[in-house]
Amino acid sequence: MSAIPDEFLQKTAKINDASVQPLPNSTKIYVQGSREDIQVPMREVSLADTPLEDGGFEKNPPVTIYDTSGPYSDPQAQIDIRQGLTEIRHNWIKERDDTELLAEFSSKYAVKSAADPKLAHLRFKHIRTPRRAKAGKNVTQMHYARKGIITPEMEYIAIRENMRLAHAHERALDTLTQQHPGHSFGASVPKQITPEFVRDEVARGRAIIPANINHTELEPMIIGRNFMVKINGNLGNSAVTSSIEEEVDKMTWGIRWGSDTIMDLSTGKNIHETREWIVRNSPVPIGTVPIYQALEKVNGKAEDLTWEIFRDTLIEQAEQGVDYFTIHAGVLLRYIPLTAKRVTGIVSRGGSILAKWCLAHHKENFLYTHFEDICEIMKAYDVSFSLGDGLRPGSVADANDEAQFGELETLGELTKIAWKHDVQTIIEGPGHVPMHMIKENMDKQLEVCQEAPFYTLGPLTTDIAPGYDHITSGIGAAMIAWYGTAMLCYVTPKEHLGLPDRDDVKEGIITYKIAAHAADLAKGHPGAQIRDNALSKARFEFRWEDQFNLGLDPDRAREYHDKTLPKDAHKSAHFCSMCGPNFCSMKISQDVRQYAESHKMDDINIALEKGMEEKAIEFKKQGAEIYKRV
Amino acid sequence: MSAIPDEFLQKTAKINDASVQPLPNSTKIYVQGSREDIQVPMREVSLADTPLEDGGFEKNPPVTIYDTSGPYSDPQAQIDIRQGLTEIRHNWIKERDDTELLAEFSSKYAVKSAADPKLAHLRFKHIRTPRRAKAGKNVTQMHYARKGIITPEMEYIAIRENMRLAHAHERALDTLTQQHPGHSFGASVPKQITPEFVRDEVARGRAIIPANINHTELEPMIIGRNFMVKINGNLGNSAVTSSIEEEVDKMTWGIRWGSDTIMDLSTGKNIHETREWIVRNSPVPIGTVPIYQALEKVNGKAEDLTWEIFRDTLIEQAEQGVDYFTIHAGVLLRYIPLTAKRVTGIVSRGGSILAKWCLAHHKENFLYTHFEDICEIMKAYDVSFSLGDGLRPGSVADANDEAQFGELETLGELTKIAWKHDVQTIIEGPGHVPMHMIKENMDKQLEVCQEAPFYTLGPLTTDIAPGYDHITSGIGAAMIAWYGTAMLCYVTPKEHLGLPDRDDVKEGIITYKIAAHAADLAKGHPGAQIRDNALSKARFEFRWEDQFNLGLDPDRAREYHDKTLPKDAHKSAHFCSMCGPNFCSMKISQDVRQYAESHKMDDINIALEKGMEEKAIEFKKQGAEIYKRV
Repeated sequence: MSAIPDEFLQKTAKINDASVQPLPNSTKIYVQGSREDIQVPMREVSLADTPLEDGGFEKNPPVTIYDTSGPYSDPQAQIDIRQGLTEIRHNWIKERDDTELLAEFSSKYAVKSAADPKLAHLRFKHIRTPRRAKAGKNVTQMHYARKGIITPEMEYIAIRENMRLAHAHERALDTLTQQHPGHSFGASVPKQITPEFVRDEVARGRAIIPANINHTELEPMIIGRNFMVKINGNLGNSAVTSSIEEEVDKMTWGIRWGSDTIMDLSTGKNIHETREWIVRNSPVPIGTVPIYQALEKVNGKAEDLTWEIFRDTLIEQAEQGVDYFTIHAGVLLRYIPLTAKRVTGIVSRGGSILAKWCLAHHKENFLYTHFEDICEIMKAYDVSFSLGDGLRPGSVADANDEAQFGELETLGELTKIAWKHDVQTIIEGPGHVPMHMIKENMDKQLEVCQEAPFYTLGPLTTDIAPGYDHITSGIGAAMIAWYGTAMLCYVTPKEHLGLPDRDDVKEGIITYKIAAHAADLAKGHPGAQIRDNALSKARFEFRWEDQFNLGLDPDRAREYHDKTLPKDAHKSAHFCSMCGPNFCSMKISQDVRQYAESHKMDDINIALEKGMEEKAIEFKKQGAEIYKRV
Repeated sequence: MSAIPDEFLQKTAKINDASVQPLPNSTKIYVQGSREDIQVPMREVSLADTPLEDGGFEKNPPVTIYDTSGPYSDPQAQIDIRQGLTEIRHNWIKERDDTELLAEFSSKYAVKSAADPKLAHLRFKHIRTPRRAKAGKNVTQMHYARKGIITPEMEYIAIRENMRLAHAHERALDTLTQQHPGHSFGASVPKQITPEFVRDEVARGRAIIPANINHTELEPMIIGRNFMVKINGNLGNSAVTSSIEEEVDKMTWGIRWGSDTIMDLSTGKNIHETREWIVRNSPVPIGTVPIYQALEKVNGKAEDLTWEIFRDTLIEQAEQGVDYFTIHAGVLLRYIPLTAKRVTGIVSRGGSILAKWCLAHHKENFLYTHFEDICEIMKAYDVSFSLGDGLRPGSVADANDEAQFGELETLGELTKIAWKHDVQTIIEGPGHVPMHMIKENMDKQLEVCQEAPFYTLGPLTTDIAPGYDHITSGIGAAMIAWYGTAMLCYVTPKEHLGLPDRDDVKEGIITYKIAAHAADLAKGHPGAQIRDNALSKARFEFRWEDQFNLGLDPDRAREYHDKTLPKDAHKSAHFCSMCGPNFCSMKISQDVRQYAESHKMDDINIALEKGMEEKAIEFKKQGAEIYKRV
C-alpha cells in the first residue's frame, strides 16, 4: 500500500500529542483479573496530606476513577496511530474457537474500495482481514451469557465497574468515619458487581456489551441501568466540512474527557477510510448509522436505496469492527402521516431518509421487512442494535405524541425478534421533551421494550436556548438517567447551529459527565460518591490542587482560580477570592469544628444548662483570628 | 457635592453603552394599565413571514417576552446613571399617604458617611432624603393585600406576568391551529392572572412583591410559585478585587440577560456608596446581606458585632431602598455543633459569621432574639425578609442533615412572626443536594414554612465539576423550580474558584433562565410555550434569523452558526451545517408534510387498502429534490 502523506502524519502526530498527557497528579493503574491478559485500566488521583494542628499529617487516600481514555493517557504506552492500538481481545476471541479469519472482505464495496488507487493515500496502513462467526455459530456476548458462560469481557467489566471502586470506597469511608465518628457519608454500603451479575444482566437483555469481534482493540464496557451511566460523543465529517485527521483527533480528545462510546456520524467523503482509522485507534465502542453511508452510495437519493446496498454496507462496517449500528426499523409507513401535523415534523436524519423511501415506493420500510436478515448479520460479528428513534420529537410541542410512541412500540416488538437471535439491543430515545413528560418516556420504554437499555439524546427540556443546548439537554439527561436511561448521547453547544469543534466536544462531554454522575449519585451507584466526598474535603481544607485534580476538568478549574488569584501562594490560601479573608465561611467553620471538638460541644444542651460563659471567654482567649490547623 | 471624576464617568458611560442596545429585531413596548402611569414594559420580537408554495406569505405573529432589562434597552429612554432612573413609583407611594419624607437619614452611619469629604468623589450625585412609614403605619404590600387593597404594583405585575402573554399566546395558538387543525400545541388554555389573584397570593404569603418605598425606580415584580419562576444574579465587590463602576455595569448587564433581581453582596470598600449607585439605577429589586456591611464596620471581627450596629445598618440600607434583606436568624446556638461532623461544616458566609458570634459570646443569635425588632424596621419601609439558610450543606455528603432541617424549622417559626407583622418573607434554600434528595427539601420547606416562597441556590447535584457549577446546579435548579421553588439564585462557572467577570455573569444568567423556563413549561405557566413553539417553527422553516432572535442569547446563536456557515446566503439556507443538503431531515420532512397534505395521507390506512403504487409514481414525478416551499 502506498505511503501516507507526511502532511497527514505530522498533523495526526501533533494532534495526538495534546491528548497523550496524563491528567494532573494522575497515574494509570491496571487491575489484573483472573488471568494475566485481563488488565483493567483505571486512573488513580493522588492527593496531598492534610496538615494537622499537632504538626502531624493526615493521609488522604488516592481516588480511583473510571477511565475511558485508553492507552493515550498512559506514558508507558507506545502510540502510533498508523499501527493502531494493541489487540487486547485477540486471544479471547480466538480461544472461543467459533470464528474464522476470512481471506478477504465480504462486502463488494470494501473490496472495490481497497483496490482503488485514488484512495491509497487515505488508507489505514495495516488493514487486517476480517473475522466472522463460523457457519451456524452465534458469537454475541448475549449468546454466551445465555449459555451461562462468563467471558473475559464480562470479568473485565465487573472489575472496571465496581470492584476497585468498592475497595477504594471502603478505604475512603474508613478514613472519613475515623475522623468523624457517628456520621454517615451518604453512600450506601457498596454492592459488589460480580462477573456473574454482568453475565446475568446481559442474558436478560437488561445490559449490552458492544464488542464486535473485529474490534479487538476494545477495552470492554457495559451499557445497562444497573451499571454506571454512560455517555456517547459524536464525531463525523460532513459534506460541508472537516477531515479524517480531525475526526481521529476528536475521538482521542473525546475519550480523554470521558466519552464511553463514540458514534461516527460521517456523511461526507471517504467515510469508509475515516472509519478504519477510527476503529483501529479506538479503545471504546464505535457506533454508526449505516444508512448514512448507504445514502452516499446512491448519491444522496433516498428513493434509490435498496436492501442489497444496505446489506453490503452492514457487512462492510461489521467487518471493520463497528460495535453498534443505529437501525431505524421502527419508522413504519403508517406512522409517517402522524408527523405531518407536528410543529417540527421528522428531525432524525435516518428517520427522514426512510420516510422518504417509504413514500417514494409506497412500501413498508425495508429495514423492518428485512429485520431478521439484519439479525443474521449482527450475530455473525456481535454487532449490537441501537434501534433508532426516527420519529423522535424535534420540539417540546411534539413530545410524547402518537408518532413517537407508535414507533417506540414497534421498537419493543423488534427487540423481541433481536433477542430471539441473541442479538444485543438498546433503544434510542427522544429528542425534545419538557421535564414533566420525561418520566412517562422512561416508564413506557422500560415497559414496551422489556427493560432493554435506553439510550437517549438529551432530552432537551426547552427549545429557547440555541447555543446552550448542552445545558437545556443536560437537565433532561440527568433526570432521565436517574429514572433509568443507561447511556446518554451528548449534545454540544453547537447543536442546531453548526459543527462542534474541539472545545465544543469537550464542553458537551463534561456536561454529560455531570449529568451521568449526578444520576449515579441519585441511583446510589456503588462508590459514586467517593469522588464528591474527596473533592469536598479538599475544598474544605483549602487543598486547592486536590480540588482541581479531582474535578472533571482540572485545567479549567485551575485556570478560573488563577484568573482571580494568580499567585502560587494562593494555591494554599486559607480563603478564596469570592469572600476574602474575613468572610471565609470555611475558615470560620474550621474554628467551629475545633471549638466544638475540643469543648465536647456535641453535648451542647448539657453545656447550656451549666451556663457556659467561661467557654466564651476561653474562645476569645484562643483568638478567633488564629487558625491553628496549619 | 463634589463632581464625579471624569475617569469614572467615561468608564461607566462606555460600559453602559454596551448594554443600551435593543436586542436584535426587538421593540420595547409598554402595556398601559387602568391608569396612565401604569406602563408595563415588554419586549416584542418581530418575525419574518413564511414563504408559501403558492408564492404567498404566511404572517408569523410577533412574540412578546417578559423583559427585565429596564429602560436600558429602550432607545427612547434617556439614560444618565448620575441621575438615576425615572421614579415611576413615586406617585403611587405618595398617594397612599401613609409615609413621610424625613429631613435626613436615620442611620448614624449614613449621616456620617454623607458628611465625609474623603468619600465625595464616590458619592452618587442626587441622593434623596428617605421616606418612612408614618408612626403606627405599616406600608408593606402584604399589609395592603390583607386589607383587600389592590395596589398599582399588583396591577402592574398582573399585566407583566400574564395578560399580554396570554393575549399573544391566543394569537399564536390561533395561527398554529389554523395551519395544523386538530393538533394540540402542548400548552393548556392560559389561565388569566388577575390583579386580584396577585393580591390574594401576597395576602396568603405565597408570593412577595419586593418593593421598598425608597426604591421608587423599581419596575414591580413578584416572587411566588404560581407565577413565572424568577432568577437572581449576584454582584458585589470584595476585599480582593473590583470597583463601583464594574458593579453598576454588572447590574445593567445582568438584567439585560434576564436577571429578575440583583443581590449586592459587596464586602469590600465603599459598600454604602456602591449600593447607592446600584439602587438608583436598578429597575429590578435589590437584595443585600446586611451582616456583611455590619462586619466591615467592626473591622471583620465577628465577635465585636452588636445589635446596635446591625440595627443601624438595616436602617441605613432600608433608607437607601434595598428591597430585601437576607437575615440569618435561624442559625441557633444549638444547631452549630451539629455542623462539626460534616464534611464541609458551615459554608454560608452569614451563617459562619453568626456561628462565630454565638460561640464567642455563648449567647443565642442576636438576629433571632431581636427578630421582632427587625420586623418593625422591615414594615416601616417594606423591606422583605429573605430568611437565610446559614447552615445549608456545602457538599452532597451534608445534604438534608439535622443542622439543615433544624434551621429550616426555625425559619418556619420566624415566618409566622414576620407574617404577624405583615412583613413579606421568602426562605433561602440549599446548596448542594443530590437529585434524589431535592424533592424532600422542597416538600419540607412548603410544609414547615407554610408555603412562603422558596428561594434556592442551585442546588448543585454533584461536587465533582469545579468550573462547571452553573451546570451542576442548573440541573438541580430546574428540578426544584418545577417542584415549587419561586426564585433561583444563579451560580456562575466561577463558583468555588474565583470572582465572576461579565462573561461568567452572562453564562450564569442564561443557564438559570433555561432552568426557570424549563420549570415554567413543566408547570404549565400560561403562555410559557409560545416562545418555544415560535422558535421551533422558525427552525423547521429555516428562518435562521428568527431562530437566533427568539433565543435567550441571539448573539451567541448567530456567532455559532456563522463559525460553520459564515456566508449571508446561508442564513436562508434550507439545510444546516450538521448534515449538509442531502441529509437534512427537516427538508425531507417538509416534503413529507406536503405530500401527506396534498394526498390526504391522514387516511393512510384506507389508502393502503386501495393500493397506492400510483401515489409513489406521482411523488417521484414531482421530484424529491425540488423543495417547493420557497
